[in-house]
Amino acid sequence: MAKDLVIGIDIGGQTSKCGIVDARGTVLAQTVIRSDNHTTVEPFIAELAEALNHIIAEAGAEGRIRGIGVGAPNGNYYTGTIECAPNLAWAHDRVEFAKLLSEQMNGIPVSLTNDANAAAVGEMTYGAARGMKNFIMITLGTGVGSGIVIDGNVVYGHDGFAGELGHTTAVRHNGRQCNCGKTGCLEAYCSAIGVARTAREWLEMSDEPSELRSLDKITSKDVYEAAKDGDKLALKVFDFTGRILGEKFADFIAFSAPEAIVLFGGLARAKEFLREPIQKAMDENVLSLWKGKVQIVFSQLKESDAAILGASALAWEL
Amino acid sequence: MAKDLVIGIDIGGQTSKCGIVDARGTVLAQTVIRSDNHTTVEPFIAELAEALNHIIAEAGAEGRIRGIGVGAPNGNYYTGTIECAPNLAWAHDRVEFAKLLSEQMNGIPVSLTNDANAAAVGEMTYGAARGMKNFIMITLGTGVGSGIVIDGNVVYGHDGFAGELGHTTAVRHNGRQCNCGKTGCLEAYCSAIGVARTAREWLEMSDEPSELRSLDKITSKDVYEAAKDGDKLALKVFDFTGRILGEKFADFIAFSAPEAIVLFGGLARAKEFLREPIQKAMDENVLSLWKGKVQIVFSQLKESDAAILGASALAWEL
Repeated sequence: MAKDLVIGIDIGGQTSKCGIVDARGTVLAQTVIRSDNHTTVEPFIAELAEALNHIIAEAGAEGRIRGIGVGAPNGNYYTGTIECAPNLAWAHDRVEFAKLLSEQMNGIPVSLTNDANAAAVGEMTYGAARGMKNFIMITLGTGVGSGIVIDGNVVYGHDGFAGELGHTTAVRHNGRQCNCGKTGCLEAYCSAIGVARTAREWLEMSDEPSELRSLDKITSKDVYEAAKDGDKLALKVFDFTGRILGEKFADFIAFSAPEAIVLFGGLARAKEFLREPIQKAMDENVLSLWKGKVQIVFSQLKESDAAILGASALAWEL
Repeated sequence: MAKDLVIGIDIGGQTSKCGIVDARGTVLAQTVIRSDNHTTVEPFIAELAEALNHIIAEAGAEGRIRGIGVGAPNGNYYTGTIECAPNLAWAHDRVEFAKLLSEQMNGIPVSLTNDANAAAVGEMTYGAARGMKNFIMITLGTGVGSGIVIDGNVVYGHDGFAGELGHTTAVRHNGRQCNCGKTGCLEAYCSAIGVARTAREWLEMSDEPSELRSLDKITSKDVYEAAKDGDKLALKVFDFTGRILGEKFADFIAFSAPEAIVLFGGLARAKEFLREPIQKAMDENVLSLWKGKVQIVFSQLKESDAAILGASALAWEL
């Protein structure tokens, strides 16, 4: 029987999404399991394998799975390991994830990379970056991740950990504390958490009226909703966030001269408020030869499928 | 007869160095012509071809030249053109340099890239980066250039102009004016001109005693000589320069996870004063996973040969 299907798995801090995908990018069957029910990797892998076997049976895909692609925080493409992932209780050390999962799945090959690299591969295979050979994927979620594609290949670097643009420095002096231990990282300002923090800081610092004042706990989604209502403070938060992104994008362009920067993730939904300040700050900070030449593209992938598609795209290369 | 030799040409603002190189990297014959005697490209190419034919005859290399590699400011690998090079009077617009030179040289193929990319290829073929597949070359000369190597290939990007790390932002607010038109660029602080400027600014701003005060016009070489004499202000200038370099290197590492950053160019001779502050600032600003893992390497190539070797290395790929 032809091995004409792949499995994509997106491992997040709370849930892991799994799907069976055909060559056209159609998700034939999918399921979700909790990522946070276990503190060691073996029982998590056992539960994951059970869930995969279930959807394989459901889709009539026995014997047709060519490979499994996994996107995971701190996933290393070269070694198939997940290392020191703060949000995964079973991966605080170094776990041989690809090897263990392959063993549990009767030897089906498993390819693994970090979630942002998987998203970049997905976007190149099925999404907004189809046909592009040089682009940078920026994922704006709980954190800020990145996947860099040069000449059609994801950049893994010397050690497999390349593409940590969320931890480049956006604010050099007296920058915000980042989860990584450094200060001033892009992620500390432009992640969902960073946006909520900006709003909270500004509410505290000023008396400016804002519908956000009535809320107990402010999330980036609240800021987005307020901006849609025309709330001035919320709109300024997105201006500020977009400016910092655009300033850093100018530096990234000087590195790899991409044709586009592709934005993906929950916060990228706020594109009507982010696009302009990003473009403006980028154009102000980039060498004149690139002014107006690098596109800002927002992901076109259906959010619920995107993570699975991204991971599955890895498996076709196996 | 075997085509077992190549020619390397390094075009600078004042002089162009040319050499015939064998496969081991031995420079068999070399010559230098002025780059600044002409305001249009054709007579410059004619003079260059004459000089090349002269050293070909001198080395008995007629019929043995496989290709010509050229490193030039604003050289584009994809198109073989030099575009808007402010320091070359005959290339203020766009000149088809590779095509014109090949025509003048009876069809010998010509490959062209910017000078920093050429230096990176040279370092990988003959120098400190032999055996490395992932490194970043930083040239500290009149300006700050860069050549980025990923998986053994120079990164040219979508348009052929990738690797302009000298024009990433080192100082975000109220930064120094850079020649490129932007402010706060790495080049404005860490080039030879930037170092001299730092010294002049600090002399003006303070009463600190320094042997540099007796000089009319201060160059980076003067600052280096003063530092060797133990001059405290000069030593602080190198500390400052090294810190800015190290801070930016941390960002570059987050991009491509190289195994080393290789420093080349006139200012890299001050390695005894730059190495420590670079390493310290880099380690303070890099994600913990890279702390202490990325080498800072100073070029081992003999300065007089290095530029020719770098350009010549390009020609082997033809």
